[in-house]
This record gives sequence, C-alpha cells and structure tokens, in this order.
Amino acid sequence: MAENMFLYWGSGSVPCWKAMIALEEKGFSGYKNKLISFDNNEMKGEDVLKLNPRGEVPTFTDGDVVVNESSAICEYLESTYKDKGTQLIPSGTKQRALVLQRMNEAMANLMHKMLLDYIYEFMETKEEKTKLKTRPDNVARKTQTLKDELNRWNDYLGKLPYLSWIDAFHIRKTGAYLAGPDFTMADVYFFPFIGFGVRVGLNLDSFPNIKSYYERLSSRPSIKASWPPHWKQSPGSFKPLTGKM
Amino acid sequence: MAENMFLYWGSGSVPCWKAMIALEEKGFSGYKNKLISFDNNEMKGEDVLKLNPRGEVPTFTDGDVVVNESSAICEYLESTYKDKGTQLIPSGTKQRALVLQRMNEAMANLMHKMLLDYIYEFMETKEEKTKLKTRPDNVARKTQTLKDELNRWNDYLGKLPYLSWIDAFHIRKTGAYLAGPDFTMADVYFFPFIGFGVRVGLNLDSFPNIKSYYERLSSRPSIKASWPPHWKQSPGSFKPLTGKM
Repeated sequence: MAENMFLYWGSGSVPCWKAMIALEEKGFSGYKNKLISFDNNEMKGEDVLKLNPRGEVPTFTDGDVVVNESSAICEYLESTYKDKGTQLIPSGTKQRALVLQRMNEAMANLMHKMLLDYIYEFMETKEEKTKLKTRPDNVARKTQTLKDELNRWNDYLGKLPYLSWIDAFHIRKTGAYLAGPDFTMADVYFFPFIGFGVRVGLNLDSFPNIKSYYERLSSRPSIKASWPPHWKQSPGSFKPLTGKM
Repeated sequence: MAENMFLYWGSGSVPCWKAMIALEEKGFSGYKNKLISFDNNEMKGEDVLKLNPRGEVPTFTDGDVVVNESSAICEYLESTYKDKGTQLIPSGTKQRALVLQRMNEAMANLMHKMLLDYIYEFMETKEEKTKLKTRPDNVARKTQTLKDELNRWNDYLGKLPYLSWIDAFHIRKTGAYLAGPDFTMADVYFFPFIGFGVRVGLNLDSFPNIKSYYERLSSRPSIKASWPPHWKQSPGSFKPLTGKM
C-alpha cells in the first residue's frame, strides 16, 4: 500500500511532521515522497500546485485520492486503514472523546500561542531582525500566555482522567502519553509543536512532565524516522528573545 | 440520549453554531443547554470553568464525557452515534477523503482569512472604532485575500470531483453540498463561517455558488433550529469597511 502513496513535504514544518508520524505509525514506512525546499519556494512548483492549488505542504496522494491538510491526512489514514499499524483513535467512547479533545485543543491553541504569536514573532532570523519592533510589555505578556498554555499541557500529562488502576500503575512505571497509557493521535498532533519549540530554544525545565515526555518520545521509531533532517545536521539558528520561562 | 447531553453555548459564535448543527443533524434536538452571555463574561463562570478550565464555549457533556473543542464535539457525535441521524462522514474512501479535506481546509483558512484578519479587524463596533488604525493598503490586501479564498470555495461548489453521472444530474437539479450530493460534516464546518460573514455585511453577489448554497441551507432544519437567536431579533450592528468585493 505504501507504494501507492506519495507525500510532498518540507523539513521542519510542523504540519508535515505530523502527517509523517501518522504515516510511520500506520505502517507505511517507505512511502514515496519528495522533500521540497521552502527557500526555493518549491511548494509553489507545478507538481505540487496541480494536486494542491494552495501550493502548500504536506500534499499527499494515495492512489487517486488527494488529501492535503495535515489533520485530514492523519484522519484519512486512521479511518481508511483502521486495522493497520497503531490504532491512533481508540474505540472506547471516553478514551476517544479525550483523544479528539486533545487533538483539536492542540490545533486550536498551540499553533498560535506557540508558533505564530510567540516563536515567529520573537525569533531572531537574519532577515527579520530589522523588522521586529516588539515592545517589551508585549514580550512579557506573550511569554506569560505561552507559559500558561504549557503549564496546562504539563498538567494534562500529570493528571490523566479515565484511568483504570492497572493503567495508572503502568503509567507510573513507563510514563504517560497525552491521553493515557497508549500513544494516540493526540500525541501525533501535539509532539511536533513541542519538537519545534525545543528546536527554536524553548527550555522545558519548568515543565517536567512535558520534558520527560519529549525525551521519551524522541526515541520512538515513528518520530525518529520522521525527525526533520536538517535539524540533525545543524543547530537551530533562532533564539527566542526571552530565554527564561 | 439527548437528555444526557448538556451544551453551554453563546449566540453568534461560529464554533458553537457548528456544534449545534451537528447535534441537530445527529438527531439530538432537545438536548439540555444553557445560553451564556459573552457580554457578562459568563463563559468564565464557575459552572463552565469546572468542565472547561479554558472558560470557553462550546462546552459539552454527554453523561460523564466532557468534550469542549467544537471540532472534537462534532467528531465525537459522529463516531459515537454513527447510525443515528445524518451520516456526516461518508464510508466511501474518496468521499470521506474529500469531506475530511474540506473540514480541515475550512478550519485552517476561514477562521483567519475571514474572521480574525478581516471581519474582526475591520468591523466597526462602537468600542473598537477608536482603536482601529487600519491602513488603506492593508484593507485592500486583506480584501483581496478574502476574495481569493471565497472564489476558491465558490469553485469547489461548482466543480465537484468524484461524481457519478447520476449524482451530477441530481446536483444540477437540486444544488450541491460542499462535498457532493449529500450534506456532510464539511457543510457543518463551512456554513457557520458564511452565515457569520453575511451577518456582518459580506455580500455574496460575486460568489453565486456560495450565494445559492447559503440561501438553500438557511432553510435546512438543523441550521434553522440553531440559527443564533439574537440575529433573528436585530439587524447586524457591524459594517465591514469595504462594502465591495
């Protein structure tokens, strides 16, 4: 089946990473793919545009089915290949409700509080340095917003609802995933945000549950296999203006 | 089952409306609910906060299951009560892929291009008038972005993929939904954005497919039943700065 699949992707893109973790988890390692260069604007190339008129990645095909939004790709893979690889959306009602909640909560909150309003606004890249006119009170307010948000997720990892005592015992030994004792779609959606944050200088010391979660999941096969390749080759070139959290 | 459900909601909120359309479509008319007042900050009230620490609506419970993000509520209802009411996510692979694509494309694009960057930025409310320092070139650029976005959705409604000739014939007579001949979750996600746009002054004359879609769906029972009540009582008080599209 992997041989019928094709993914256009960019290295370091949170939505691409998310789709790629789902592909690995569902057992499609070895799917055909093309790494596009954001610097050369290759997401606006003819081959991508003909499948995805928005000219964005991920752009994904499975035979003659085209799916482009990262969340749609993840849900498409899970619903089409339910019995293959990891079950990412649980069958049990309560667990499924929690997974759906965390997936959508991550999308609704982290994209902005973490990426667009914080990292993209504050990170110092050569080109953007001159453009940034961030007022100190803005930095303080947005730092606090991100800190509150991360505290919330740190608590989620520490206090999981709906746990049987067996699962609670298990988790004390092995560590929790975002929605319980098993890796789910909630982790597929959440991990790349944290990975990106760490890459651009986020210090997780104040969020111990996220820190151990990050460290543990970093060596999960699906996540290792899809780790943005250029991150392995060079250290991050951004520094958030505020180091302290 | 509806008697075990409870929804906290606010009138005129796009995410609330979306959850409410899904509740109606799945056959849960008559679910218990509380209309909260945004003006009185009731989403930060104790009853909401204890279920949803973010203090936001929609906040939804089904027995002892709590789900708060609007997309999570919709997907929870569909996956938990698959055989009840309207089937909102199709079983066929291609149709399901298209529905998932449009659902997530609406969320990823319309929330910003339509609501946050356009309507919220340009609408003139008494309190905000003085704050707005929108430069004319900004208005022109963002108007163009929204226009391009709406043209895209107008085209989606006009050129549906994966249609059998019977469905194509049917659609020519009755009009299309966003992902084909049937109302799906794609419509649940998309319609409230357009409804909100029209409420705040969006003129659909340049988007004839969206216009007839909007008019047709406005009388669909699930949408009529969940229409924001205060919109029925008074005309909109906002006017986008740019009337022309």
